[in-house]
Amino acid sequence: MKVSIIGATGYGGIELIRLLQHHPYMRVVSVHSSSQAGVPLRDVYPYMEESFILRDIRIDDIEGDLVFLATPPGVSSEWTPKLLAAGYKVIDLSGDFRLRDGNVYAKWYKKQAPNKELLKQAVYGLTEWNRDRIATASLIANPGCYPTATLLGLAPLVIEKWIVPHRVIIDAKSGVSGAGRGVSLGVHFSETNENVKIYKVNTHQHIPEIEQMLCDWNEQMEPVTFSTHLIPMTRGIMATMYAEAARPLSLERIIELYKETYKHCPFVRVREAGSFPCTKDVYGSNYCDIGLAYDERTNRITVVSVIDNLVKGAAGQAVQNANVMCGWDEQTGLTSMPMYP
Amino acid sequence: MKVSIIGATGYGGIELIRLLQHHPYMRVVSVHSSSQAGVPLRDVYPYMEESFILRDIRIDDIEGDLVFLATPPGVSSEWTPKLLAAGYKVIDLSGDFRLRDGNVYAKWYKKQAPNKELLKQAVYGLTEWNRDRIATASLIANPGCYPTATLLGLAPLVIEKWIVPHRVIIDAKSGVSGAGRGVSLGVHFSETNENVKIYKVNTHQHIPEIEQMLCDWNEQMEPVTFSTHLIPMTRGIMATMYAEAARPLSLERIIELYKETYKHCPFVRVREAGSFPCTKDVYGSNYCDIGLAYDERTNRITVVSVIDNLVKGAAGQAVQNANVMCGWDEQTGLTSMPMYP
Amino acid sequence: MKVSIIGATGYGGIELIRLLQHHPYMRVVSVHSSSQAGVPLRDVYPYMEESFILRDIRIDDIEGDLVFLATPPGVSSEWTPKLLAAGYKVIDLSGDFRLRDGNVYAKWYKKQAPNKELLKQAVYGLTEWNRDRIATASLIANPGCYPTATLLGLAPLVIEKWIVPHRVIIDAKSGVSGAGRGVSLGVHFSETNENVKIYKVNTHQHIPEIEQMLCDWNEQMEPVTFSTHLIPMTRGIMATMYAEAARPLSLERIIELYKETYKHCPFVRVREAGSFPCTKDVYGSNYCDIGLAYDERTNRITVVSVIDNLVKGAAGQAVQNANVMCGWDEQTGLTSMPMYP
Amino acid sequence: MKVSIIGATGYGGIELIRLLQHHPYMRVVSVHSSSQAGVPLRDVYPYMEESFILRDIRIDDIEGDLVFLATPPGVSSEWTPKLLAAGYKVIDLSGDFRLRDGNVYAKWYKKQAPNKELLKQAVYGLTEWNRDRIATASLIANPGCYPTATLLGLAPLVIEKWIVPHRVIIDAKSGVSGAGRGVSLGVHFSETNENVKIYKVNTHQHIPEIEQMLCDWNEQMEPVTFSTHLIPMTRGIMATMYAEAARPLSLERIIELYKETYKHCPFVRVREAGSFPCTKDVYGSNYCDIGLAYDERTNRITVVSVIDNLVKGAAGQAVQNANVMCGWDEQTGLTSMPMYP
Repeated sequence: MKVSIIGATGYGGIELIRLLQHHPYMRVVSVHSSSQAGVPLRDVYPYMEESFILRDIRIDDIEGDLVFLATPPGVSSEWTPKLLAAGYKVIDLSGDFRLRDGNVYAKWYKKQAPNKELLKQAVYGLTEWNRDRIATASLIANPGCYPTATLLGLAPLVIEKWIVPHRVIIDAKSGVSGAGRGVSLGVHFSETNENVKIYKVNTHQHIPEIEQMLCDWNEQMEPVTFSTHLIPMTRGIMATMYAEAARPLSLERIIELYKETYKHCPFVRVREAGSFPCTKDVYGSNYCDIGLAYDERTNRITVVSVIDNLVKGAAGQAVQNANVMCGWDEQTGLTSMPMYP
Repeated sequence: MKVSIIGATGYGGIELIRLLQHHPYMRVVSVHSSSQAGVPLRDVYPYMEESFILRDIRIDDIEGDLVFLATPPGVSSEWTPKLLAAGYKVIDLSGDFRLRDGNVYAKWYKKQAPNKELLKQAVYGLTEWNRDRIATASLIANPGCYPTATLLGLAPLVIEKWIVPHRVIIDAKSGVSGAGRGVSLGVHFSETNENVKIYKVNTHQHIPEIEQMLCDWNEQMEPVTFSTHLIPMTRGIMATMYAEAARPLSLERIIELYKETYKHCPFVRVREAGSFPCTKDVYGSNYCDIGLAYDERTNRITVVSVIDNLVKGAAGQAVQNANVMCGWDEQTGLTSMPMYP
Repeated sequence: MKVSIIGATGYGGIELIRLLQHHPYMRVVSVHSSSQAGVPLRDVYPYMEESFILRDIRIDDIEGDLVFLATPPGVSSEWTPKLLAAGYKVIDLSGDFRLRDGNVYAKWYKKQAPNKELLKQAVYGLTEWNRDRIATASLIANPGCYPTATLLGLAPLVIEKWIVPHRVIIDAKSGVSGAGRGVSLGVHFSETNENVKIYKVNTHQHIPEIEQMLCDWNEQMEPVTFSTHLIPMTRGIMATMYAEAARPLSLERIIELYKETYKHCPFVRVREAGSFPCTKDVYGSNYCDIGLAYDERTNRITVVSVIDNLVKGAAGQAVQNANVMCGWDEQTGLTSMPMYP
Repeated sequence: MKVSIIGATGYGGIELIRLLQHHPYMRVVSVHSSSQAGVPLRDVYPYMEESFILRDIRIDDIEGDLVFLATPPGVSSEWTPKLLAAGYKVIDLSGDFRLRDGNVYAKWYKKQAPNKELLKQAVYGLTEWNRDRIATASLIANPGCYPTATLLGLAPLVIEKWIVPHRVIIDAKSGVSGAGRGVSLGVHFSETNENVKIYKVNTHQHIPEIEQMLCDWNEQMEPVTFSTHLIPMTRGIMATMYAEAARPLSLERIIELYKETYKHCPFVRVREAGSFPCTKDVYGSNYCDIGLAYDERTNRITVVSVIDNLVKGAAGQAVQNANVMCGWDEQTGLTSMPMYP
């Protein structure tokens, strides 16, 4: 299958190229960038072996059957209807189609939402929890990096109603690549190195995305507290999550629940009692590793969930969704081990 | 005043030497190390200008009127009674004398506690909250790095009973220097760089230290959830803290409370609404900077507290306590600006 | 083909496992560690998917046809004769068999050299320059990380005698993973982060390895100056090399020479004029990227050569050599793109 | 003495504020920024204790007797004549007045040079080598960061003619703060972290500055090769320098020469044989630490010189020069120890 990437010069775009390099069934045939049309991709990234020439974003210049949109919010909503009309399957890595309610989108993204029909058509691509709908979808809203780590970490407890629905706190830490390749003081090395910053306190646009899915799983779920921190590293997200047990529990039972829940999910790995993943444990891979603790003193469960924000948090999950859409094993092309150290 | 440092080759010890270099009233006259007696300190740290020779730890070899113990737990409890008996004032940077209840110490430190008399005599050196008792003390238990950031961040809310006493969650992030200079896989560069690790989940020895002070302030306080993460940077701690409002509040009133509470505390700085400190904002300085948020959606307060773990979290607060013990302005020798970037 | 790895718990060992995971013709069947026999490799590296149990190093416990020795100097020389006698092909990643003259080895490594017969039998595995001999060898001395970057960078100029033979200076910069996984103050995060260190000035054991090959190429070559610096990053080597032109030259002709020389070397990539590689351009890949400059003011050529020290500088080149030994395309299993950013 | 800082929002400007905070004789009374006039400096740098309001750059708004220009090339040359005419002493941290020959400036800076009279009037502020002229100057051209490390490292050998004049190679490594606070892809964290980059090969504007001084010391000196590398750290420069001995030498004699040369230079510290400084050894301080090696195999001397690029390489040396201009001890306000780790 031939695929195109729109927004190929950002980190999401080049990660797609890296992951698809050895995919047995998909081949990148055209790469697009509105700002650098005509430029060889190798001029932007000299390490690239393949000699793509960046094309402008025009329907006629796009090739293949499936398009990955690695574009910013607002751009995706502009191009998606045209691509769907032209018969392409679309996997959108932006946040444009993740929120079903356009008003919620407008409130958190400070942008106008896509039209309702498209929002209804879009399938939320948290692969492990939406395989059936993904399989028949033509438009996938690929989840955000933070929601992926958070939702995979909370799902079993929320669905089984083992936790108190109004006491969930998520403290997330992310590497700087999550902010993209655009330049700003916020990603300046000298301001970021040897530093931890908290940002968008209580206002991060991933909050409604997380809450929407939690409520789908359990309608009693209340708003969550979700904080994001910038860490002096390039890749990786750790979400440390705190919830109150709603019933008598033991760590053993919790771990058992997670292992049972994810037994058919090759990319979600659950640690044994006492072991917690670090972000390096998933570096460059599509895994989401989860560690668990239960504290009798406080009756609280701690869930630690790590992903590579550019792989399972973006391009990797997009490929995983493409695999499901096309009827292939969801692991196809995604089985590389983490790179350590 | 002449002072001695025992354990001078660790990071706490050399930070004391750095901070005391320009102190107008204190002068380091002898530095001690059990493992490297006889060695010039400059052989251990070639950047050092002053030509100290490390001495063995023996009462007769110690000089001055005040001794800083920058020694590990267990070592401090051994030397403190001898030093007090010999008439020295003692400021201990280890955790040996921070917990009043020896059984609690034994449980969390997995070591035998110092004797009861000494524990009773020791004054907990969270300067801003204990100035009067510190002024007349001869033995100071200098607070841990995490408790310092946490307690300064929570004090106003706890004392005023503005938060629900059983819902406090502390998610702390620390640079690697907090682990000291000893070598281990846990501080190996290749294992720590580009990585975030959670450690000692629910078992960190700073938990009882935090809870003891919270209960002193408000006896209704319940056990807290406290998590510690290792961040790929050398210095700095950020404690992100979550609590539920116990009464109707606004961000303005919370900030006002903090500013009022700390108006006579030159090292505690409270940010305006919408501004949050990063760890670099206090790099190399004795400041504790605090940012605050209140989320109406969840009725939760978020407190962000940052310190330099080696300064306000260790050597700086020790000097601040020495200043108070000696009747000097607590800022003496500690007014250097943060080093940025 | 079944292969074994001895010394599987070090960084060279696990990088071999990562690279061989998708190799179409080689499969790791046994992994060995003298210090951790009986331990599941996943207990050492929890991110590992495959469930290897570490075995002791005993001839009877080794499986397959080819053995990778990812062991320290001294250990390799002990095990190699036994393995060869038992019929295994051996690729040794240590420095034990790289120097043909045992006296030179003894001088620089401060260890006794392997016996002369073995030294004579060993083929130096700088793949691009020794393919024919590697193809028929049973013992490969896999090159050091620094020599790989240096020699690939200097070869064309030395062989063509375009540079003055007694004026070569190599200033090399390496990430910390080159020092291995052993703990020491030298790899302590707090001592290494925000720091550049020079080490082993004029005494690095890779100096004779570099000089031996240079003299093989051009017997007039004189001793080189070679300096190594530790950089606060995990992976990557950059060798910046300075040489004096021995005849009238232009940058165009130099680049042409390099492109011609390496036109059949898929892993050596030569940059156009004005472009220089950074270490991230080869991160996680088997490439060696080379940039060139010629300065008329000084008549000097600057060669910039970058590799990933754990791939082309160790495990990747070992797999490349195994491919050549077995008659497969040398790129087999090694074509992954660099991981960026 | 009252002083003003123009360009106060850059890294050079805030480092001046930090260093002058405790200076006994100088006090910053006005800070200026063309782009952010009217803004409180604390809005730009929230960690700042003092409440400066940034002023526009206008002669009437400048206060005090001495002005530090922490402005980019081109801006300094515009303001300097006005400031001198208004009677201010000026210390310029840009490169505008460092090169005596305007044509050389124009060639390397790609800008028009300041007028000849001013160039003649300016005194090059490498304090250790120009104290007499600095003492009576009204315009100081404060040296570049790289030239400071390089020149202090080479001076004794060049002046004594112990090295061959046409064989000097300087391989310099710098932290990212040297590039300033302006945003660009070159200082983007994700592009800089875990990476070493070489830049401006043979074209760095500090080359003529280095050569001018070398030729002042020894007119036989020939053009040097000077390479600059960007290192994933914030502060620090290491210059590793290679020169060929022009006469029979020993390491002992070389070290003796350096110690003798710098015996009245409190900020230049020379290491004993076998010891080499790392950049962290001078972190945050005004020291230049120098290590030396001599290799009999190659007859080459290696000089390793480290500074903090923002202190001795910029603001610290500017204060040192101000001290000399004002007749105070050159160490005044500059004696803080390095911050380690």
